[in-house]
Amino acid sequence: MTNPEISKLGHFGLVSTDLEKSLWFFKEVIGLEETEEADGVHYLRAWGDFEHHTLTLRAGEESRLDHIAWRTKRPEDVDAFAENLQKEGIEINWVEEGTERGQGKAFRFQLPSKHTFEIYFDMEKTLAAPETRSVLKNQTHKSWNRGVSPRRIDHVNLLSSIPANEFSDFMIQHLGFNLREYVEAPDGSYLGAWLSVTPLVHDIAFSFDPHSASTHEVHHISYWLDNAQDLLRAADILKENGIEFKGPGKHGISQAMYIYAIDPGSGVRLEIFTNGYLIFEPDWEPIRWTLDEMSLGFTYWGDQMDNNPENNPTIKA
Amino acid sequence: MTNPEISKLGHFGLVSTDLEKSLWFFKEVIGLEETEEADGVHYLRAWGDFEHHTLTLRAGEESRLDHIAWRTKRPEDVDAFAENLQKEGIEINWVEEGTERGQGKAFRFQLPSKHTFEIYFDMEKTLAAPETRSVLKNQTHKSWNRGVSPRRIDHVNLLSSIPANEFSDFMIQHLGFNLREYVEAPDGSYLGAWLSVTPLVHDIAFSFDPHSASTHEVHHISYWLDNAQDLLRAADILKENGIEFKGPGKHGISQAMYIYAIDPGSGVRLEIFTNGYLIFEPDWEPIRWTLDEMSLGFTYWGDQMDNNPENNPTIKA
Amino acid sequence: MTNPEISKLGHFGLVSTDLEKSLWFFKEVIGLEETEEADGVHYLRAWGDFEHHTLTLRAGEESRLDHIAWRTKRPEDVDAFAENLQKEGIEINWVEEGTERGQGKAFRFQLPSKHTFEIYFDMEKTLAAPETRSVLKNQTHKSWNRGVSPRRIDHVNLLSSIPANEFSDFMIQHLGFNLREYVEAPDGSYLGAWLSVTPLVHDIAFSFDPHSASTHEVHHISYWLDNAQDLLRAADILKENGIEFKGPGKHGISQAMYIYAIDPGSGVRLEIFTNGYLIFEPDWEPIRWTLDEMSLGFTYWGDQMDNNPENNPTIKA
Amino acid sequence: MTNPEISKLGHFGLVSTDLEKSLWFFKEVIGLEETEEADGVHYLRAWGDFEHHTLTLRAGEESRLDHIAWRTKRPEDVDAFAENLQKEGIEINWVEEGTERGQGKAFRFQLPSKHTFEIYFDMEKTLAAPETRSVLKNQTHKSWNRGVSPRRIDHVNLLSSIPANEFSDFMIQHLGFNLREYVEAPDGSYLGAWLSVTPLVHDIAFSFDPHSASTHEVHHISYWLDNAQDLLRAADILKENGIEFKGPGKHGISQAMYIYAIDPGSGVRLEIFTNGYLIFEPDWEPIRWTLDEMSLGFTYWGDQMDNNPENNPTIKA
Repeated sequence: MTNPEISKLGHFGLVSTDLEKSLWFFKEVIGLEETEEADGVHYLRAWGDFEHHTLTLRAGEESRLDHIAWRTKRPEDVDAFAENLQKEGIEINWVEEGTERGQGKAFRFQLPSKHTFEIYFDMEKTLAAPETRSVLKNQTHKSWNRGVSPRRIDHVNLLSSIPANEFSDFMIQHLGFNLREYVEAPDGSYLGAWLSVTPLVHDIAFSFDPHSASTHEVHHISYWLDNAQDLLRAADILKENGIEFKGPGKHGISQAMYIYAIDPGSGVRLEIFTNGYLIFEPDWEPIRWTLDEMSLGFTYWGDQMDNNPENNPTIKA
Repeated sequence: MTNPEISKLGHFGLVSTDLEKSLWFFKEVIGLEETEEADGVHYLRAWGDFEHHTLTLRAGEESRLDHIAWRTKRPEDVDAFAENLQKEGIEINWVEEGTERGQGKAFRFQLPSKHTFEIYFDMEKTLAAPETRSVLKNQTHKSWNRGVSPRRIDHVNLLSSIPANEFSDFMIQHLGFNLREYVEAPDGSYLGAWLSVTPLVHDIAFSFDPHSASTHEVHHISYWLDNAQDLLRAADILKENGIEFKGPGKHGISQAMYIYAIDPGSGVRLEIFTNGYLIFEPDWEPIRWTLDEMSLGFTYWGDQMDNNPENNPTIKA
Repeated sequence: MTNPEISKLGHFGLVSTDLEKSLWFFKEVIGLEETEEADGVHYLRAWGDFEHHTLTLRAGEESRLDHIAWRTKRPEDVDAFAENLQKEGIEINWVEEGTERGQGKAFRFQLPSKHTFEIYFDMEKTLAAPETRSVLKNQTHKSWNRGVSPRRIDHVNLLSSIPANEFSDFMIQHLGFNLREYVEAPDGSYLGAWLSVTPLVHDIAFSFDPHSASTHEVHHISYWLDNAQDLLRAADILKENGIEFKGPGKHGISQAMYIYAIDPGSGVRLEIFTNGYLIFEPDWEPIRWTLDEMSLGFTYWGDQMDNNPENNPTIKA
Repeated sequence: MTNPEISKLGHFGLVSTDLEKSLWFFKEVIGLEETEEADGVHYLRAWGDFEHHTLTLRAGEESRLDHIAWRTKRPEDVDAFAENLQKEGIEINWVEEGTERGQGKAFRFQLPSKHTFEIYFDMEKTLAAPETRSVLKNQTHKSWNRGVSPRRIDHVNLLSSIPANEFSDFMIQHLGFNLREYVEAPDGSYLGAWLSVTPLVHDIAFSFDPHSASTHEVHHISYWLDNAQDLLRAADILKENGIEFKGPGKHGISQAMYIYAIDPGSGVRLEIFTNGYLIFEPDWEPIRWTLDEMSLGFTYWGDQMDNNPENNPTIKA
């Protein structure tokens, strides 16, 4: 039997203390489309996302990233992953088909840090309503409908008081990820790690926060735009809507351009992301950045986040 | 034993009747970097390519695309592919290590159409000279050194009097490619097929040319730019250098933007390419375009190629 | 007494046989803002226009460009222009203050071709409603509210069976315009003329159409975008909304990028325009293009209009 | 007799303590073209500039902006300005024809702050050499030849211990400039003033620096790019060449995007500039920004200059 494999990042499950404001932010300002609303859960996706949803939004008493969902490569990989993880002593919880609209059988489990992952394969590829459907057969919605209008989900960056190498090891060993770039502290631990199962430089990254007492926070979730100019347009839109943000700037690590905006409802940070490089090399040597090089790694040029974590509130994951 | 797999498009081997003019076009106008020259062969690559070369150029009595090279996923896949292909009755020719500079053991074989493929794994990841090396550890050369300055190799599009479905079948069966989009004629044959082993919509495409007597021509080779604006800048550069081109425009199929420029040395068509979508779905349903929809599939908007093949000379592959 | 002077192009008065469709096109697809509606006239402007309106739309039995309005440099220039024109035997018709909302005393007159011009100075600088007002004090509306979202009015291009040099002479002699570029036929007449009172290459252009029996048509009206990338985004929006258009391309004359879109309501052609050069030289020598050079002058590169005027219907002005 | 008028900013005369490094910066990194070198003076211009030079560079013991040249509207305006200024008790110094290559009779004078202005009309419109001449008749050089490749000179920003309103008054009264935007201190003095004789928001700006003992410094000189994306490309080029810079960001005042880069030879700050709005209104009400609004006025979004003037060295003018 072949090893089970992850094919891609699927979606984010977000809980907001101010659902109405979060819906305004993600739907009106960012311009995600709502596939449907059921039982208080709003199922959103970008115009170029192919699945039923890439972000769920619901109300809760504490804003947090409830779960991060990964799609497997084959239907049978869901069971195989469940079995493998349980063998390693990791507890899993099954999520029945339809509990999340559009989604088949899935299970959730926690990383040692208490971040929650969901593993699934089956997901509806719901089309847009005829009046908002693209004239192109390979595109779900019309583009540029509203606001920033990103094309698709891109990646997630988790924050923790646990060094990033522990996450990196877990992702490689249990889920088949590849380490792409990392920042190494003098003691050999990782301050940051960028990993992927796709040619994207990262489907997920982990950032070490020595100032935090929490093991399970989220630094940001991210959606993709096709062009750098679209990011500048996004800055105009965010500013005119009174949204707090950092950037635009360009990372050294990933070579991608960014804006970091805060959802005023949940407080989650959204990275609007574009450009960067792809890794097709099967024998990729992870890029190692030292403490001295870290600053260039984080910011090639442009406006950057405050180094003081107190000025950069995060939410739990 | 696992099946051998292709990881990526590696390089093009191009023969030009006017080597000097082709070198001027690819190095000065397009801005590829020359890694080295040996035995009359010029080894070129884009600033963001990681391998020793993605294009070789040498003089010859007839301009033609000598071979298209594919990198395997694992070192042992080279032998495994050789064995599999020979079992199918396909003749292979070994290329000794170093015959192509930087490249390890490889072999070549012909498609039934007589297009030549090369299969290899080992390739040097030569760095740029210190003075042209990027300040970034994940980037080979400084960007924007000269001319159009594409980031990396992207794909190849082959032309033939053989319907595209025959190529598509071959690529799926023998090399593990996935069909992503296709144009179907009323008789069920394919007028065009776009296939990939990566999340790119195509690493290779095949176009059926009913007007050609030849089974092995090349429609274009392609390099990638990060932003649509860079494509508009490319148009200025091409025009000022007296290069003949079509575009800019946007394809429906792949959703990517294009310029088609002709190398005045070899006559090969180069597609300068950007934007478009990525396929991360493991259960992708190939997008089927009919004759009626073909025009939208080829051109979403913009300047397009003349429909008359006589106005669109191609070279042999 | 100093000669009266024109300071700028003010607005277009457009009559549409299908007002509802024209309103949808200009407000929803293009994204002009409606300042107000009164007596069946809709007063529109772009987010960066400072005046009460730059386009009026009303229903009529024949679609036509009712008038093109020019703002004078000083209040007293309105009377002075009226006097000067009457001295030359040109009939003028006064338009009372408020006949056009926001506008002070004005008059209209016809060019020898029967195109109608309006001359005014006073115009309200109505602010946007607080909820759509920009956070910037120097900007009327929030940008990127809807659709293509151009910044401001740019220019007009009139079409006629009368050679362009006759228009050019009139504009220079009576209204103080400067000739910037022109296409000269072998007989010395002008096939096209681009003139301005501002550093824009043209506030107005005239195109000679030998196939037309009409002296007073309009080739296009035009609005401005800040970036070429915005033009590519406009192409996506137009295509998804089923709007017929040509472009994108880049003119040689003016060095500007264009898309030509047709308002499905009135049939008027709208040029979406960006980039290009400005003329600050006080001793500018008009650029002369010959018949041989005309093609480069019209299209530096990109998708262009059909040369056959039958495929390019125009409306009366 | 009509009042003499300024038509445009002409050029900067820059003296550098490290001429070789300044030439490398302006020619190789920024990509200005050298029209000629004579008597140790290098005459540079951008590819889209129409005059013989818009920047002169020569060696000197102290880096400084030697003079800022303004072109008059008519030939006779040079004498008329000289006469007017002398009547006001301002000393003028004639510069003989040809002292600056390409330039006719001119004179220089000092503002009360000791900044030096030059007034001229006649200037050669030297064409590029045939091999670097654009295929377009309205463009001097091929674009995109090297480096950042700006289109044209844009503006200058002077720094002084004298409040900006004194400069503003001088420019309006003696040279016919229009005040476009200003930042007003609670005591009614101006912290900054932006003025123009063209529809650009500013041909010149003045910044009040309370920390400086000098009345005659230069904050920056500026060149123009057509697209915001070109500014992002400029950031890559500057970073790879080890040039110190701030930005990209977008000003509130002028609505323009910027990068501030330092010439490592002379230490002069160069603003690479794009987008923004034009003022065609003849009755423009200068935009007043208060202390509270100043931060938004300086930076709409993006990376900005350090508020501490000690971190922002300037050179004398």
